[in-house]
Amino acid sequence: MSRTRVAFQGARGAFSEQASKQILAGRELSFEPCEKFFEAFELLRDGTVDYAVIPVENTLHGSVHENYDHLLNYRPEILAETHVRIVHNLIGRPEASRSQITRAISHPVALAQCLDFFRRNPGISAETHYDTGGSVKTVMDGDDPSLGAVASAAAAEYYGAKIIETSIEDDPENFTRFFLLGRESSPAESGDARKTSLVFITKNVSGALFKCMSAFALRDINLTKIESRPLKGRPFEYCFYVDILASPREENCANAMAHLAEVTEFLAVLGSYEPASVPGGN
Amino acid sequence: MSRTRVAFQGARGAFSEQASKQILAGRELSFEPCEKFFEAFELLRDGTVDYAVIPVENTLHGSVHENYDHLLNYRPEILAETHVRIVHNLIGRPEASRSQITRAISHPVALAQCLDFFRRNPGISAETHYDTGGSVKTVMDGDDPSLGAVASAAAAEYYGAKIIETSIEDDPENFTRFFLLGRESSPAESGDARKTSLVFITKNVSGALFKCMSAFALRDINLTKIESRPLKGRPFEYCFYVDILASPREENCANAMAHLAEVTEFLAVLGSYEPASVPGGN
Repeated sequence: MSRTRVAFQGARGAFSEQASKQILAGRELSFEPCEKFFEAFELLRDGTVDYAVIPVENTLHGSVHENYDHLLNYRPEILAETHVRIVHNLIGRPEASRSQITRAISHPVALAQCLDFFRRNPGISAETHYDTGGSVKTVMDGDDPSLGAVASAAAAEYYGAKIIETSIEDDPENFTRFFLLGRESSPAESGDARKTSLVFITKNVSGALFKCMSAFALRDINLTKIESRPLKGRPFEYCFYVDILASPREENCANAMAHLAEVTEFLAVLGSYEPASVPGGN
Repeated sequence: MSRTRVAFQGARGAFSEQASKQILAGRELSFEPCEKFFEAFELLRDGTVDYAVIPVENTLHGSVHENYDHLLNYRPEILAETHVRIVHNLIGRPEASRSQITRAISHPVALAQCLDFFRRNPGISAETHYDTGGSVKTVMDGDDPSLGAVASAAAAEYYGAKIIETSIEDDPENFTRFFLLGRESSPAESGDARKTSLVFITKNVSGALFKCMSAFALRDINLTKIESRPLKGRPFEYCFYVDILASPREENCANAMAHLAEVTEFLAVLGSYEPASVPGGN
């Protein structure tokens, strides 16, 4: 059986690798780690990989807006979503002790999720790095015991580093939502594809966004997310990314889409997929 | 006459300083540059400064989401808005020549706005720094002619550095919107305060956001912006920041606010102010 090739942003051990294993459980995977998000989209477009797995939002930090822009520009097909619980750890070289660490490197989103830890530990300065997993690699490639990283336990294990303090994130309700992206010709994932992501640009009329949302509200279709992004070259105008709990294969939703097309100047379906369970919940 | 004290994020010469001069034209200003955005909010809250000037969105990069979170947490009063045209320059030490520059440091947003320049110039690597103005300061504090910065002409002038290439931004339609923030007791800015920013959390009912927006749409009040941010501790729930072209001092808008209060679990007005003109246009 040939391996399934998956591109993601970050070095080995990144949370995106964990998401890939979760979303493609049971398959034998080979990974193409990319330094930048757009590279993962390009490897997918060019056929170098079968899938890309990218984060789209974190429950503390908000959306990964760059990836929304890439969804529109590269137009992959969203095949599935998953939620990964984010646990950050202070990680050091195997010989390092807690008191030696004076700098901790990681992706800015990870650092922003450990603000309380850095406030409580003013002797450790937070410094940005391109990736969580990559920050552990950098620590292990060097020989400086005062340099630490903030990353997953999987990254510590992958690079043979030591977990110095576990679960240093501010908030345990810390989840990241990932998309599995394929090409249009990719085989559809199994499951009940009753959630749909779409993007549109409103017509330049009064109450435009309200009219767009009425296409769903009038048909009792729930929105689970709305995200706005600026339109380049049109200052202070926006496109909107919306997730709905419906599939265009259902008549009610198909009618909503036809209605939405009337009140938008651009409309595209990015994919339909089975909704991941919302973790925790009250 | 005592100087008006203004806090902003960034070093001297940052675009926020330019915005401060634009929005408080005619006053004698003294500046409190801050490394982090939250520090500017704290200086304002504590009474150390009279105002804070902070960016909230850029027409290419999108919203400065962190500052939306701070608007909710620190609850300053939005007194005015302004738009600043962003022109980025490659800046070096006075003795540096174009061919010597191999690294250019700047704020990640600035670097993201010059992607074409860095693609055309693969011999110059982009590296993140906490601030545009501060990157020029770093270049001038050192003695490395191969280190450049990406920043405003004002920053080059302030630090005595040399502009090596001007206007290296990808897109000339590049504007940043700034808020002038004061305390509740701050004297209102003059002008026609007919734009209002507010934040709300919807009730957990079906079609909740649509119902909120209907409060405005049914009264012909235009939305100019909607932004969603995650609610901490409530995974995949959001609060919404909305700008409307209306003032709660008008009866129609006051009615809309009363209607909105019925369908929200939290609602706050962040400020009313005179709308800045939209630059350029079509």
